[in-house]
Amino acid sequence: MKIAVMGGAGYIGSHTIIELYKAGHSVVVVDNLVNSSDESLRRVAELVGSPIPFVKADVRDAAAMDKIFSENKFDACIHFAGLKAVGESVAKPLEYYENNMNATFVLLHAMRNHGCKNLIFSSSATVYGNPAQIPITEACPKGQCTNPYGQTKSMLEEVLRDVQKADPEWNIVLLRYFNPIGAHPSGRIGEDPNGIPNNLMPYITQTAVGLRKELGVFGNDYDTPDGTGVRDYIHVCDLASGHVSALKAIERKCGLAIYNLGTGHGYSVLDVVKAFEKVNNVKIPYSIKPRRAGDIATCYCNPQKAFDELGWKAQYGIEEMCRDAWNWQKNNPKGYKG
Amino acid sequence: MKIAVMGGAGYIGSHTIIELYKAGHSVVVVDNLVNSSDESLRRVAELVGSPIPFVKADVRDAAAMDKIFSENKFDACIHFAGLKAVGESVAKPLEYYENNMNATFVLLHAMRNHGCKNLIFSSSATVYGNPAQIPITEACPKGQCTNPYGQTKSMLEEVLRDVQKADPEWNIVLLRYFNPIGAHPSGRIGEDPNGIPNNLMPYITQTAVGLRKELGVFGNDYDTPDGTGVRDYIHVCDLASGHVSALKAIERKCGLAIYNLGTGHGYSVLDVVKAFEKVNNVKIPYSIKPRRAGDIATCYCNPQKAFDELGWKAQYGIEEMCRDAWNWQKNNPKGYKG
Repeated sequence: MKIAVMGGAGYIGSHTIIELYKAGHSVVVVDNLVNSSDESLRRVAELVGSPIPFVKADVRDAAAMDKIFSENKFDACIHFAGLKAVGESVAKPLEYYENNMNATFVLLHAMRNHGCKNLIFSSSATVYGNPAQIPITEACPKGQCTNPYGQTKSMLEEVLRDVQKADPEWNIVLLRYFNPIGAHPSGRIGEDPNGIPNNLMPYITQTAVGLRKELGVFGNDYDTPDGTGVRDYIHVCDLASGHVSALKAIERKCGLAIYNLGTGHGYSVLDVVKAFEKVNNVKIPYSIKPRRAGDIATCYCNPQKAFDELGWKAQYGIEEMCRDAWNWQKNNPKGYKG
Repeated sequence: MKIAVMGGAGYIGSHTIIELYKAGHSVVVVDNLVNSSDESLRRVAELVGSPIPFVKADVRDAAAMDKIFSENKFDACIHFAGLKAVGESVAKPLEYYENNMNATFVLLHAMRNHGCKNLIFSSSATVYGNPAQIPITEACPKGQCTNPYGQTKSMLEEVLRDVQKADPEWNIVLLRYFNPIGAHPSGRIGEDPNGIPNNLMPYITQTAVGLRKELGVFGNDYDTPDGTGVRDYIHVCDLASGHVSALKAIERKCGLAIYNLGTGHGYSVLDVVKAFEKVNNVKIPYSIKPRRAGDIATCYCNPQKAFDELGWKAQYGIEEMCRDAWNWQKNNPKGYKG
């Protein structure tokens, strides 16, 4: 298949392109590079042994999208583009709503106008809010998102649901990501956040490499085995392959389909720190900080539906995630800027 | 105060302009006239004895909004603009989401850029979904909206809440309208829907005037006194004066404030038909049709909060609503096109 990859220069996008090539698909990548670097695409090209067609454009640019969809006949689109920093979204809600929602509106218009009605959308476990049940299945009701970033994901799921209901020619897969960490085993591509990381693993690796003095652990009084928050960490290469598997749902004309992409295992913050220290033989100094507003105690999924319907299952464990995250960071201490 | 009135040529907007003038405010009206006529503004000008400054523009046009807000120093904005037909929104969800949400994003950007952070937003009782309690207070949780129109109102409430939380200089009043009917007592302005009316009263008046053969009553097996749906109908002039009262909340720097605008009385479809027949001495033939998807049995509010905090209370009863609706329709059988 020929796939339009919106936001393809980012962390998850770049890893997904590799999996798409491995499965024999071709891509055109679109990215405004606001939160990513085209260096990632140069390295992906090295890894797959082929240049990666790339258009620098903002998905909100209707004329650019019209041009891209008229110059290419796409079988499907994978839509990663969007702002994603939880804390920033609380400070700049209008920017987050406008960016993430309007990009999707413009994209849907362009796709419809050019007869491409197959879409894989990057959603998030955040749409479950404080989940009604653990492990979380796709039947679990959506909850109250506590930040604008999460709200954009939850609202866009509703938009896509209504679009598909009004026009059943659409096939739309909502992939609810749990917590992607790790990097490609080559160490050539990985997570390269701007500024102070919001997420655990880049904070750990930046501490290990000496960019940060210590890791802050936000709360150790949650109702979890060691008191720190428990999450469903998934290797980014597994998450990436989930998108290739999701194309199967598109091929069998799924209508609207929702899949959790996680491992089904919950690890606490301290579990991850310990695994990282053991696998990589480095010490991660940390200190306990107050809880962050909006954080929940425990979040992990039941990934059975993706296995049953797509044959997809995470292959990597927490050790590989820690190994590959560190392999990326130590070989690229300043990320793509290094 | 000087008020920017977005969507001011429409049904509620035009009536509100009269109340704003009566209270000594001035306005600039912005409307794209997609679902309204500037004839309404010519008639408002007659009624208030003053020309109404008007800019024909789409609120999604960022350059036009920037120009309007740079050429005028507004004390506040009332935002009526948006698509509002429930049935159409189910068929054209992308158009509804894109139009209503993007207009609000563009408006918020323009307001912020020009230092006008006082907004009154047209929300709807529909955000309560199937309400958790009757009568509905503002403390009642929001519910599941069953159509994209309602979703846009509910989502935009969340956007506005987050924008105000991030920047407390904003004062934002969410007015949750119940069911506006009736018209200005002069009979010069009123509701002028395109095509087949979605709502009860224009269907009644178009039947009375001979444009429709009979009224369709959707369901007579609801759990209500006569089996037909019960709603909180409010005279559009009362709803309009609610906006003038809401400016008091802006003046006292309310932050985010929410008010129900309704009478607090529930009338069934057949109650309204009977009142209309009695007051106007006309016969409304009707037939019972199946329930419409998404309709609920009963919806009326407790309007106490608007009285306590704004001193606002509906003045007109169901008889005046029926009288004025008919006065408008019989004098303007084809609406503004007549």
